[in-house]
Amino acid sequence: MSSTSTETPDPPDARSRLVAAAVAAFAEKGFHGTTTRDIASTAGMSPAALYVFFPSKEALLHELSLVGHSRVLELVEESASSAADPVDQLGAVVEAFVRDHAQSHTGARVINYELSALTAEHRAEITALRHRIDLVVRDVVQLGVDQGVFHTRDPHMTTLAVLSLGIDVARWYRDEGVWSPADVAEHYRGLVLAMLGVAPDQ
Amino acid sequence: MSSTSTETPDPPDARSRLVAAAVAAFAEKGFHGTTTRDIASTAGMSPAALYVFFPSKEALLHELSLVGHSRVLELVEESASSAADPVDQLGAVVEAFVRDHAQSHTGARVINYELSALTAEHRAEITALRHRIDLVVRDVVQLGVDQGVFHTRDPHMTTLAVLSLGIDVARWYRDEGVWSPADVAEHYRGLVLAMLGVAPDQ
Repeated sequence: MSSTSTETPDPPDARSRLVAAAVAAFAEKGFHGTTTRDIASTAGMSPAALYVFFPSKEALLHELSLVGHSRVLELVEESASSAADPVDQLGAVVEAFVRDHAQSHTGARVINYELSALTAEHRAEITALRHRIDLVVRDVVQLGVDQGVFHTRDPHMTTLAVLSLGIDVARWYRDEGVWSPADVAEHYRGLVLAMLGVAPDQ
Repeated sequence: MSSTSTETPDPPDARSRLVAAAVAAFAEKGFHGTTTRDIASTAGMSPAALYVFFPSKEALLHELSLVGHSRVLELVEESASSAADPVDQLGAVVEAFVRDHAQSHTGARVINYELSALTAEHRAEITALRHRIDLVVRDVVQLGVDQGVFHTRDPHMTTLAVLSLGIDVARWYRDEGVWSPADVAEHYRGLVLAMLGVAPDQ
């Protein structure tokens, strides 16, 4: 803990500083507009020190994307299994998903907008995670349709719209705005259930 | 029409080639990851020839943003005034907005994701256009609420969600997918009306 020189930063700390610096830089200038030098310098490190942890700029994007998507998949799976009733399941999924995209809007923009910058192998891995998130939500929607509580002519496109609505929160949400992530999450829960033909409680 | 040399391209044609090249480059590499040299070369011109039409890379982004937002505002205004009934008005607005974001998805991503790259003056101009688009939709939603045909606890946030749903179509829509822009537009019309508590026709 005492007098760590900047040349030899504590590994876990340096790693997380680099990840945080990469999120900020990619969000501000885009993946292709960012250099590893920018990221290293924001993290208070040399480019050479960056390469100790990440072999390339793409490796940083991959790390961000993997961590971010894994976290969202876990969140969605937990929410879907928090209830037996599809209305409660979908409500919980939407609230968790939307709240997360409002809270982590900067990182969410990066991992949703920079997919094409990943290598083919990494993109396939992240696409598979996205597909799993999709399937969790699609299964909940289908369960509600099967039970006659949800009404939609196209459960597939409706699922896509539900996730799309949540993802776009990351584009427009502002920390300094009047709505908290919980406010948006709660309102969106109601909007999505209405989209599926569920009448509001009150 | 005969033997136009590449050094002195026909002005309107050169201008539109530059705009098309800028859309493609900004969509692929982001504004900050694109150089004027990239754009000029895609348009088959020299960087010097580019500067005859656009003094900077930002001037190109501004042109794209202004043309794109003005077109969407016109589209939304026309749709809103195409009917007297707020259900038909909102349905028409959503169909036009969604179809446009599916058809012009590449350009729509650029003008929605690169707002922060505009100069303060240009950003203020585009923000004002976005605000006008917002207000058209908010007025239609409010009219429906006032007439008791729409039900929402927060017309403002619901309007934002309606537009957000349309804007995010530009992120996920693929020309090679199974759904046409008209398919998505029609389904989204139903989803948005359901969001506002309007029961489907059939």
